[in-house]
Amino acid sequence: MEDSPQRALQGLGSFPWYVGGTQVLGLACVVITGVWMGSYHGGYAWDGSGQEFNVHPLCMVLGLVFLYGDAILVYRVFRNESKRNVKVLHAVLHLLALIISVVGIVAVFDFHNHNKIPNMYSLHSWCGMLTFVLFCVQWLMGLGFFLFPGTLMVLRSWYLPLHVFFGLAMLAMSLATCLLGISEKLFFSIQHTYSQFVPEGILGNMLGLLLVAFGILVGYVVTREDFRRPPHPEEEALSVHFKTLTEGGGSPTSP
Amino acid sequence: MEDSPQRALQGLGSFPWYVGGTQVLGLACVVITGVWMGSYHGGYAWDGSGQEFNVHPLCMVLGLVFLYGDAILVYRVFRNESKRNVKVLHAVLHLLALIISVVGIVAVFDFHNHNKIPNMYSLHSWCGMLTFVLFCVQWLMGLGFFLFPGTLMVLRSWYLPLHVFFGLAMLAMSLATCLLGISEKLFFSIQHTYSQFVPEGILGNMLGLLLVAFGILVGYVVTREDFRRPPHPEEEALSVHFKTLTEGGGSPTSP
Repeated sequence: MEDSPQRALQGLGSFPWYVGGTQVLGLACVVITGVWMGSYHGGYAWDGSGQEFNVHPLCMVLGLVFLYGDAILVYRVFRNESKRNVKVLHAVLHLLALIISVVGIVAVFDFHNHNKIPNMYSLHSWCGMLTFVLFCVQWLMGLGFFLFPGTLMVLRSWYLPLHVFFGLAMLAMSLATCLLGISEKLFFSIQHTYSQFVPEGILGNMLGLLLVAFGILVGYVVTREDFRRPPHPEEEALSVHFKTLTEGGGSPTSP
Repeated sequence: MEDSPQRALQGLGSFPWYVGGTQVLGLACVVITGVWMGSYHGGYAWDGSGQEFNVHPLCMVLGLVFLYGDAILVYRVFRNESKRNVKVLHAVLHLLALIISVVGIVAVFDFHNHNKIPNMYSLHSWCGMLTFVLFCVQWLMGLGFFLFPGTLMVLRSWYLPLHVFFGLAMLAMSLATCLLGISEKLFFSIQHTYSQFVPEGILGNMLGLLLVAFGILVGYVVTREDFRRPPHPEEEALSVHFKTLTEGGGSPTSP
């Protein structure tokens, strides 16, 4: 069902509020993670101590949640900019997310190794590593399919829906991994008082719910029909091109 | 971009394999949960003991994962049946999921109360209760909007995308809650040996990854464009009706 222009405009009227909501929730998650590790666990360092561990949750929430979510949102927020520029911004934000998450992963491995704690035994670590590996693969495939100028249009149009689906699926996996990390951290730190509703437990639980809310709001903004990027004349021509190609075969080598 | 009939047929050729994959993964999750609680934790009972707790994970994975996922899939699997019948099947499967998850929730509260363990302090319990409450609200709203014959078409067409989006979001929340539950159970049961890669730890982690795979596959099947239910003549007429109504106003009281 197509929307009338009036309905589309009505929809877009609420768009800034939804995007604003994602930013408030995302920043709240980053700040709460930072304050939790800063206030309850002694702040940050890079010396193999518990303070080095604290770098891990902060980097992962900043990289694989907040920046990752924002990288997805750019196609909706910059709806009237050239698609090429938005693609580059999408790739750069994801690259930033990748670098920050590598720092976060190195921090936790370094902390474990310094303290003779085994790596990669928990469900949190298995889900996290799977998400991180898939994220790297998706980033490289996105680069090859959408930014490398020589990629065939027919391949781009084949891969696009997979890229979009797995992008959202990985955001969900990343969030689930964060929830597992929060739960683990609380059971390690306040095992004997968690059940008494102590402030740190409530803070961690609230952070978990805020992460869930962030994921739901980002997912809603990027899947809502009337928030989609409007077709631009040159993209329309491209879309017809796609259709001709996928139905009839062909091989142009640039967009 | 519309698909040609040839492409649509190619897509549908793989459809049974994807659906089969969801069923194999979903059943594997139920069986592994059952075996885990049965073999490692002494089986099932309803007497306030640890065996009563064991009813909880089995019911939640059976109800809020496997049956919930299948209830979503019926719109794709029964693509050529009357929509009314498929709606009723969707509602009945969800009702079954609801009843089984109520049994699972009662089991864990009863176990806690018998053993003087506080309720609702962990992130698992907060996420789980939020998911369950939203699921009840969504079930009631689905009943009111789509099965109650007097609901206005304009309201149905307004609510449908929200129902679909939150249906998938809740499957993701339900799966994340299961992962939290697995992690909690492992830290409670094998805290001192989990890091030595003991069989129970690996079994729990594998169950977690299978749950993630189930969620991704169900999500893929229901969002893939060429797996969508084909438009049937009477639904086409209804769709035009929807469009006229949403653009021009009106109030029929039956589909």
